[in-house]
Amino acid sequence: MRIVVAPSGFKESLGAEAAADAIATGVRRVVPDADVDRVPLVDGGEGSAAALASATGGHLVDTVVTGPVGLPVHSHFAVLGDGRTAVVEMAAAAGLRLVPAHRRDPGLTTSRGVGELISAALDAGCDSVLVGCGDSGTSDGGAGALQALGARVRDRHGREVAPGATALAHARSVDVSGLDPRLAATTTRLAVNPHNVLCGPRGVARVFGPQKGATPEQVEVLAHALDNWADVLRRDLGADVALLPGSGASGGLGAGLSAVLGAPLLPRFDVLLDHVDLDARLAAADLVITAEGAIDAQTPHGKVPAEVARRAKAHGKPVIALAGTIGPRADAAYAAGIDAFQAILPRPVSLDEAILRGGEFLADAAERVLRLLLVGARLAPTG
Amino acid sequence: MRIVVAPSGFKESLGAEAAADAIATGVRRVVPDADVDRVPLVDGGEGSAAALASATGGHLVDTVVTGPVGLPVHSHFAVLGDGRTAVVEMAAAAGLRLVPAHRRDPGLTTSRGVGELISAALDAGCDSVLVGCGDSGTSDGGAGALQALGARVRDRHGREVAPGATALAHARSVDVSGLDPRLAATTTRLAVNPHNVLCGPRGVARVFGPQKGATPEQVEVLAHALDNWADVLRRDLGADVALLPGSGASGGLGAGLSAVLGAPLLPRFDVLLDHVDLDARLAAADLVITAEGAIDAQTPHGKVPAEVARRAKAHGKPVIALAGTIGPRADAAYAAGIDAFQAILPRPVSLDEAILRGGEFLADAAERVLRLLLVGARLAPTG
Repeated sequence: MRIVVAPSGFKESLGAEAAADAIATGVRRVVPDADVDRVPLVDGGEGSAAALASATGGHLVDTVVTGPVGLPVHSHFAVLGDGRTAVVEMAAAAGLRLVPAHRRDPGLTTSRGVGELISAALDAGCDSVLVGCGDSGTSDGGAGALQALGARVRDRHGREVAPGATALAHARSVDVSGLDPRLAATTTRLAVNPHNVLCGPRGVARVFGPQKGATPEQVEVLAHALDNWADVLRRDLGADVALLPGSGASGGLGAGLSAVLGAPLLPRFDVLLDHVDLDARLAAADLVITAEGAIDAQTPHGKVPAEVARRAKAHGKPVIALAGTIGPRADAAYAAGIDAFQAILPRPVSLDEAILRGGEFLADAAERVLRLLLVGARLAPTG
Repeated sequence: MRIVVAPSGFKESLGAEAAADAIATGVRRVVPDADVDRVPLVDGGEGSAAALASATGGHLVDTVVTGPVGLPVHSHFAVLGDGRTAVVEMAAAAGLRLVPAHRRDPGLTTSRGVGELISAALDAGCDSVLVGCGDSGTSDGGAGALQALGARVRDRHGREVAPGATALAHARSVDVSGLDPRLAATTTRLAVNPHNVLCGPRGVARVFGPQKGATPEQVEVLAHALDNWADVLRRDLGADVALLPGSGASGGLGAGLSAVLGAPLLPRFDVLLDHVDLDARLAAADLVITAEGAIDAQTPHGKVPAEVARRAKAHGKPVIALAGTIGPRADAAYAAGIDAFQAILPRPVSLDEAILRGGEFLADAAERVLRLLLVGARLAPTG
């Protein structure tokens, strides 16, 4: 039996690699000679750089950059196995986890470190940069990242605007003449959730502002500032990004890098999963096991298990999903092609314990699921 | 597909009938035309009388008896479909649930109400009484029940001893001359867990005393009192019940009724499951689903899922168990013939919520398990 084990990470509990290891452990307890193909998956957010480095035989480069609140943070980017493609995970420089709880004001946090990571990747000799979006703690429309790369964003007095989204309300011009010249010879791409847009009622300020710590009043201030930023980008660069699919990715980083660098905003799974050759591996599987922290009504909207199911269905493969939490209207997952799903908890536990013991629970749950599958196999009408 | 659904109740959450209904609901969501044979199972404890009345087309008779702390309690017994066999569930007259938390002193509680229920069953015209043991809140060696039926337990001054286990330390004689004469023409049997014995290191005081609220000092007092009770029964009646299998059932009720009434102590499942014709129904099944509050190291030691599995294995049928809690060393369940088991919880929840929403969780869990079985059926090598 060939089993593709293709989980996402479990946020705050397990990375995708550890999740894949745990599932493989549980599977092998029941079918010791199973051919388990581990394919840890990422969505562009935390852990993406490390996972893609691992999947392609590349490596990570550690560096220090300006963090989201202006203080230095330890960060990293990946150089993939081809030696020329860098993966810059924006969360590693400007992620929500890097913003201390008492400073969670998305009007002030900056994506500057993302630009510094791109520079560092160019310093390392890369001529292709893939920016993974997700888990961001910023809403500055990518202005900070662009400033780090040499762009100038000025107010009506010709002064550089301050870091953060709020100050973008005062932006009157963007000057790209000082951009790092190496960027002209660099292919820059972004891996984004195309559902995220910069402006409008489903814009990034209104959808993600509250998650990043904005009050309702701040959300309106942010939305106004990002509307102004979109106007500046259109006026000075001719780029209409306000409603471009993915322009809202990572607090508008998609908008800024698309408008200034011409970086295409690519549906994240199309660009990320190709690196792990997922389709070919699914084609060779008898069974696919995926996993994520939660299976719920959001699962069909671009989450890892749904993407795995979509691709597995193209090859007619059965898909099982494991989850820490089965949430409201999880049945939507069946329509997305997930044949069966299961929660991993063995007994009433607190969320804290569930997070702490995620690996153990996941391995045990995989074991129990395999045993159920074997019972099911006995029930099949035999020819 | 013919599925026998044979769960125990989930203590404090669901009766066996409700558990069977919930599982059937979940099964039918996935296989609407499944032939679901519901067989709610009991172990002699709470709910046993009602379940056996239901299974045999009998009825319940309500009555008021002396409760375990001496106050009247609403109670009941079953008259089975044959119209002559009563099922007296000792928990309905002297169960732990009937002992208020602040009065949980097993040295004082009495099984008197059990004797009153037997009398009531004779009043109702029954000539066969099956006493279900389990979930008791007493440790009086059945002395209270026997006193209610006309026996006299006296101290060295010839005075009747007080109710409760502690007073048995003063017992010097048992006089059965005043026993209800109808008992001589009545078949009385007890359904017990044969692992429970009255005396010795695995005796009822030491194993169950702490559960019933005894302190370590009280446990030794209880053990001494029950040793004395065993001596009195041997001396006056020639009955050596100290280590008789099942003599410790329900705080020694087994010992007292065995010695005085000559009631056989029958392994509970042998006598209870025959009423529901379990073996024939298992023989006709494609799949068996059982359930209990917990699957753990104790499961193989006479718990419902293990008994179902043992019988199902005799017919070569696959068995799945659902549980609210998967406890320590639950893997022991595999050796007991359970092919796969699964916890029913969908997400991190408190024990209180798990109890409150047991029916919903169980139905949803059964649905998920059926879906996994169908995936398994697709994996089977087809002839």
